[in-house]
Amino acid sequence: MTEKEIAILRIGHRPERDQRVTTHVALTGRALGASGMYLAADDKGVAESVKDVADRWGGTFFCENNVKWRSCIKDWKAAGGKVVHLTMYGINLPDIIGEIRPCEKLLVVVGAEKVPGEMYGLADFNVAVTGQPHSEISSLALFLDHLAEGDEFKREFPGAKIRIVPSKAGKHTEEL
Amino acid sequence: MTEKEIAILRIGHRPERDQRVTTHVALTGRALGASGMYLAADDKGVAESVKDVADRWGGTFFCENNVKWRSCIKDWKAAGGKVVHLTMYGINLPDIIGEIRPCEKLLVVVGAEKVPGEMYGLADFNVAVTGQPHSEISSLALFLDHLAEGDEFKREFPGAKIRIVPSKAGKHTEEL
Repeated sequence: MTEKEIAILRIGHRPERDQRVTTHVALTGRALGASGMYLAADDKGVAESVKDVADRWGGTFFCENNVKWRSCIKDWKAAGGKVVHLTMYGINLPDIIGEIRPCEKLLVVVGAEKVPGEMYGLADFNVAVTGQPHSEISSLALFLDHLAEGDEFKREFPGAKIRIVPSKAGKHTEEL
Repeated sequence: MTEKEIAILRIGHRPERDQRVTTHVALTGRALGASGMYLAADDKGVAESVKDVADRWGGTFFCENNVKWRSCIKDWKAAGGKVVHLTMYGINLPDIIGEIRPCEKLLVVVGAEKVPGEMYGLADFNVAVTGQPHSEISSLALFLDHLAEGDEFKREFPGAKIRIVPSKAGKHTEEL
């Protein structure tokens, strides 16, 4: 199991319109090993949805509303962290992941449709997940999976109230 | 490069409300090796968005609107295909992917919030991507990536009008 510190920074979020997609970004981060998400917009609905999931399914995922994205990046770097920006214009994931894996503290920046040009220079790594247009949610999932090399499938979530019992057909859960 | 035939079947889509998420599902499928998506709802906006992308970025991804999901599954099976249903209640991906890889013709069913109980029995494989709640988009991405074992990162899209030139910082494209 990786002991890296990984957080998400979500930029370009438009309140209301992007609420579902940004919630999926956060939940993907949570399921695949990130410790929390900074949201560079004021939209408390995202944090509420994510908190509901974390309360029930365990773990300690944080969701910080209304952060300033430039200061977030500056503070992260000042604390010795590296910044990965997921963008279809970057270096293809398989060609760069080996350089990123040794980093112990990673901020993964996930943009919406428009990302300020400045972001490309601020990132330590601009990473493309195929170079084709698809989804910031799938890009984040594939990045975190390749980073952890599959270890995140065995992740435990302490304090969960419910857990799924894997099943060939049907829905089986246990209350904890 | 895999020569499998893979299609997506999107069920439980609510027109308008799910348009963005379902479009992300389709584009993720396209980028990661599926040949098209059947949409079990009447929402032409999805097909239009996906067609715009495919016209510009290449390939031959199809998007079929308003299919009946039960007949779609029945026809797929009658043609010798297997059906994978992505659900957090299924068998965890790393524990089942080895059984699925030999299948040459796969229909990947991606549900929205509510999925009819019947679906679990119709699927040849109910597959969980971590057993935690996150996103059907990330589930599909991780499933297709594990299925292709990374080969999809080298995929070419014939007939593209534009292509990205991978770059350490900045946005570089070439017109073709």
